[in-house]
Amino acid sequence: MDRPETVVIVGVGLIGGSIGMALRARKMAGQVIGVGRDETKLRDAVRLGAIDRFSTVLERGVAEADVAVVCTPVDRIADDVRRLAEHAPDHVLITDAGSTKRQIVEAVEKSERARRAFVAAHPIAGSERQGAAHGRAELFDGRVCALTPTAQTPPDRLGRAREFWQGLGCRLVEMDPERHDHVLALTSHLPHAVASALANTVPEDALALAAGAYRDVTRVASADATLWTAIFRANRQPLLQALAEFRTQLAAFEGALVADDETALQQWWASGRDRRSSFSLQPVPKP
Amino acid sequence: MDRPETVVIVGVGLIGGSIGMALRARKMAGQVIGVGRDETKLRDAVRLGAIDRFSTVLERGVAEADVAVVCTPVDRIADDVRRLAEHAPDHVLITDAGSTKRQIVEAVEKSERARRAFVAAHPIAGSERQGAAHGRAELFDGRVCALTPTAQTPPDRLGRAREFWQGLGCRLVEMDPERHDHVLALTSHLPHAVASALANTVPEDALALAAGAYRDVTRVASADATLWTAIFRANRQPLLQALAEFRTQLAAFEGALVADDETALQQWWASGRDRRSSFSLQPVPKP
Repeated sequence: MDRPETVVIVGVGLIGGSIGMALRARKMAGQVIGVGRDETKLRDAVRLGAIDRFSTVLERGVAEADVAVVCTPVDRIADDVRRLAEHAPDHVLITDAGSTKRQIVEAVEKSERARRAFVAAHPIAGSERQGAAHGRAELFDGRVCALTPTAQTPPDRLGRAREFWQGLGCRLVEMDPERHDHVLALTSHLPHAVASALANTVPEDALALAAGAYRDVTRVASADATLWTAIFRANRQPLLQALAEFRTQLAAFEGALVADDETALQQWWASGRDRRSSFSLQPVPKP
Repeated sequence: MDRPETVVIVGVGLIGGSIGMALRARKMAGQVIGVGRDETKLRDAVRLGAIDRFSTVLERGVAEADVAVVCTPVDRIADDVRRLAEHAPDHVLITDAGSTKRQIVEAVEKSERARRAFVAAHPIAGSERQGAAHGRAELFDGRVCALTPTAQTPPDRLGRAREFWQGLGCRLVEMDPERHDHVLALTSHLPHAVASALANTVPEDALALAAGAYRDVTRVASADATLWTAIFRANRQPLLQALAEFRTQLAAFEGALVADDETALQQWWASGRDRRSSFSLQPVPKP
């Protein structure tokens, strides 16, 4: 594809800021415009090299957009996409970086103009930290980005979205929004809920004896409450199902412990260990 | 105290090996003798600089011990301490590195000879990895070591144990064995159980979309099945209590999610986040 002259990033936090840094480092855009509500943060983002300039008025910022990436919290993405579609040029590609997909895609597809411009995406790279100050141009290198097109997604926009996210360093996978949300409930939303439940369980006066296991299991409990409440609510049914499966596993452990069943405890542990060994987060060379 | 001429380490794995490396790096012993069952591993430990020499016969290895540190799995520690006490010189200090304390202390104190030599300890530094090959001399720098003396612990041995563990770089805390086991059930054994339950919940075909949250929450699920089964069994009651508290927290989350209660979800998340923010594992300068 031709290099887009103007990329607009709506929501210049950790993800949006990193996208801007990657676009600028890789010279993937003529200019990167940040759109947000907080002028101080947008000024910081310019200073950090995440964006070239900014607007606090979405309608104005988006007027020249060839590509627009919506990086706001999941409960605001669909509205932002629809507003963008109304005010951006006809040829615009709109994509997003939301952690859930079904609700967003359904809401966007109710607007014909938005549907014609939109390809839903989820670059799976993040952190418990917030803000462009924690962003980095390499955040997406070798990371998976899920695209969740539907039968309504225009093929030309899908092609441009693939090039855009691959250009940032992502490995692409494509699936339908329901499958994405089901899988992410297990791989991300459940771990966050579990981390927070553990953080809520361990009293402060015990923390002097906490070490690596506590640190790692609870790390993501430091993430933002508003962001995560929105994600949980946007993915309620898949997450409730994942929680039920997790409870079943924990009950199996508890049952074996009550019975003091050494063999059952060892088998349970070995099975989790085997599953875990299938995972690796090594950045993979780009195709 | 005088520098011990001979320190014997029974069980030269990650912890025992690191103790040997630290003793040798800090010139805290005239010689470090490893005792174990697997001659190949003991030879490796010599090559790795963890021990000076070794014996596969505990009775022989311990004959000259001024200090003996038992680093075997928790279900073998009490027996090893009692055998050491029978064969070591009268002045020996015996300590251990077990992750649970009550059962060990109770079993050791049944033997008068063992009781007179023993100070129970738990250096809270470890890893999901195993073996002296993953050991390092700095493993204990700034880490907490819990000592759990009882009314029966001889004061002179307690003094020597304090010097020994502080000499390795540890910050000491002292408490009774029951308190130790209650706290560690929350800060270590529960996180391990939760990590493994999560690893057991997420199917392999979902792992392509897993990233940092999954990686960190499940990291310790890679630990050894036999070691962890023994720890869970040695701390059943405190761990069952910790599991019950965890289930209550998870149920609070699930209830708020079922009710789609934004305020309750935010408050629950914020409370976990606040708890987590009280934790830091920065090594603290030694006193």
